Amino acid sequence: MTAKEKSPFDTNISKNRLEFLFDGIFAIAMTILVLELKLPEQIHDKRSVDELGQALLHHWRTFLSYIISFVILSGFWIGHNTLYAKLARITKAILAIHVWLLVWAAFIPFCAHLLGRYPSNPAAFAVYLSTAFAYAVGLLALIITADRQKAFDATVSAVDVRRLRRGLIRSLIGMVFLILYNVFIMPVLR
Amino acid sequence: MTAKEKSPFDTNISKNRLEFLFDGIFAIAMTILVLELKLPEQIHDKRSVDELGQALLHHWRTFLSYIISFVILSGFWIGHNTLYAKLARITKAILAIHVWLLVWAAFIPFCAHLLGRYPSNPAAFAVYLSTAFAYAVGLLALIITADRQKAFDATVSAVDVRRLRRGLIRSLIGMVFLILYNVFIMPVLR
Amino acid sequence: MTAKEKSPFDTNISKNRLEFLFDGIFAIAMTILVLELKLPEQIHDKRSVDELGQALLHHWRTFLSYIISFVILSGFWIGHNTLYAKLARITKAILAIHVWLLVWAAFIPFCAHLLGRYPSNPAAFAVYLSTAFAYAVGLLALIITADRQKAFDATVSAVDVRRLRRGLIRSLIGMVFLILYNVFIMPVLR
Amino acid sequence: MTAKEKSPFDTNISKNRLEFLFDGIFAIAMTILVLELKLPEQIHDKRSVDELGQALLHHWRTFLSYIISFVILSGFWIGHNTLYAKLARITKAILAIHVWLLVWAAFIPFCAHLLGRYPSNPAAFAVYLSTAFAYAVGLLALIITADRQKAFDATVSAVDVRRLRRGLIRSLIGMVFLILYNVFIMPVLR
Repeated sequence: MTAKEKSPFDTNISKNRLEFLFDGIFAIAMTILVLELKLPEQIHDKRSVDELGQALLHHWRTFLSYIISFVILSGFWIGHNTLYAKLARITKAILAIHVWLLVWAAFIPFCAHLLGRYPSNPAAFAVYLSTAFAYAVGLLALIITADRQKAFDATVSAVDVRRLRRGLIRSLIGMVFLILYNVFIMPVLR
Repeated sequence: MTAKEKSPFDTNISKNRLEFLFDGIFAIAMTILVLELKLPEQIHDKRSVDELGQALLHHWRTFLSYIISFVILSGFWIGHNTLYAKLARITKAILAIHVWLLVWAAFIPFCAHLLGRYPSNPAAFAVYLSTAFAYAVGLLALIITADRQKAFDATVSAVDVRRLRRGLIRSLIGMVFLILYNVFIMPVLR
Repeated sequence: MTAKEKSPFDTNISKNRLEFLFDGIFAIAMTILVLELKLPEQIHDKRSVDELGQALLHHWRTFLSYIISFVILSGFWIGHNTLYAKLARITKAILAIHVWLLVWAAFIPFCAHLLGRYPSNPAAFAVYLSTAFAYAVGLLALIITADRQKAFDATVSAVDVRRLRRGLIRSLIGMVFLILYNVFIMPVLR
Repeated sequence: MTAKEKSPFDTNISKNRLEFLFDGIFAIAMTILVLELKLPEQIHDKRSVDELGQALLHHWRTFLSYIISFVILSGFWIGHNTLYAKLARITKAILAIHVWLLVWAAFIPFCAHLLGRYPSNPAAFAVYLSTAFAYAVGLLALIITADRQKAFDATVSAVDVRRLRRGLIRSLIGMVFLILYNVFIMPVLR
């Protein structure tokens, strides 16, 4: 990055270890989603199948929120996996973008918790979407940076990068509309 | 999957990374089981060996549930390990099945918690069994898909696959009966 | 184990993946120790350095318990590391012993929590020691089994195994005395 | 370390496994930061965007504390990564220093929680700084020990080590002043 003389202690990240950290954080974020699921408490007859069954069914939205968040994080992980395999080296900028990606990925369990607690509040949905938006912005930055710093390997052509970037920008615009809709239109509609 | 032209950014999962994610999620699910174990609280003489001992013994079912869930998750992990070693490649369908497997594996700590809290309620047991059932259905789908997509390596013969599939289907049928028994017969028996 | 014909789906664990699971569970057990540390709550002046400082110092035993448990788990991990490096293969019995080891290693955070909550209760100390004892019994079983099944690599002589086994048995006997002392002598002494 | 005859069971840590444990603990510490984030509870109209939005904004310091702690842990991890890549072997002393580093790294989530709860209390800030200080002392010990035990690889010159050591000592002195300022000057200033 700077022109000062080269030291062996210049930041130097192995692609493998960044992969470990990334996979580790995703594995944990996906698993702690389940910590948010609360046990039914207000049960009169502790042995009643009907009561416990209904108490669990009553919280079906929380369970759905668990499964959806799990699938979203899996999707993030699979997308990153595909992209990461094409990186020939990890520059400092790419490293910094990964910290950004991980901040937001690790934040998803909080969003899932918030949405599970306030499922009818558009703000909870907007927080979730904003987190996904921040993550997707990181992905876009990753693509643009890797392209500029020529960090993609030889199998990736300029056309591939352009197509991927365009798809991502389209998703980002869609997300912005969804967030604005939830924050400004939804409260008025009710 | 589709016939459109090949891009370097087509979903492409390394067998190693999926393994990391899988092992990571299992390691976490197994370890957070212990977070469910509650400390004894209603102790009058904080220094009394008898009282603390009895308070802990009183919750022996929770501890047993911890050990059983740990062993069940280990069993899932060992079974998957053996199967996974025979996969020559990870197709998109196999990847999707892995997300399914992980959703249910990560859900086991909740089931363990539920069963530890309502040990005498057949519904809690049915929820646990249903989760194991959903996981096992995923395993069956994995075997059938890997066989159809010719993703098993050369050491696996059609006879091996058939035998494994038959064993799994038999377990699934047994599980269905156990679930039905817990939901419909048990409440009547009492 | 049985004499039936060989199948590609016989349990077959890669040494690497068992290592991942082991390291993963240890990493998590060591990190969730910190989840047990409670924040000081009864503070009148939220901005007072003295009050917060004293509230934290008041819980020094909990912090000490955190550090000691962390170091104990590190010790377990280092010991296993050294032993594991000498295993040439993972038999089914060795795999089963690893599940045993992991059950008790993952249980240490609960013990740490219990001891931090009831530091003056010999029963809490006995529970902790019993968990370490159960882990050490697993280590002894691992050494004896690996020796009998000739799973150690060529650098390990019969003399090395005998010496290691003797040291471990001595520790186990010491632990038994400590546990008995805590359960039977300590309550009488007071 | 000692002069007694060599045994195959002398402590012998693979560089890879220590790396796994380190990365695992960092991944978990970074992810459980989010467990500290509490959901807003005192909301009258559960469906009000304004109320939930304001409740979340009210806790902006907790969210900032989450992001800062995440970035600090990332910084620690990146720094260690760079250093670790230059180690040719893991001696017993280097292993012991790693346990020290991990104790303090895993303690950061507690510090983040404390600071998020008492943001205006200089003692909370001092605890956070002291933990970072303890970690940095470990880094200094790592550099000095690796240098003395000739554990750095051939690309590292004496000049590189001296420069790194000097930079670290300067940071440590700065930290001491900041801690003293928070503990002794800040309470007087108010």
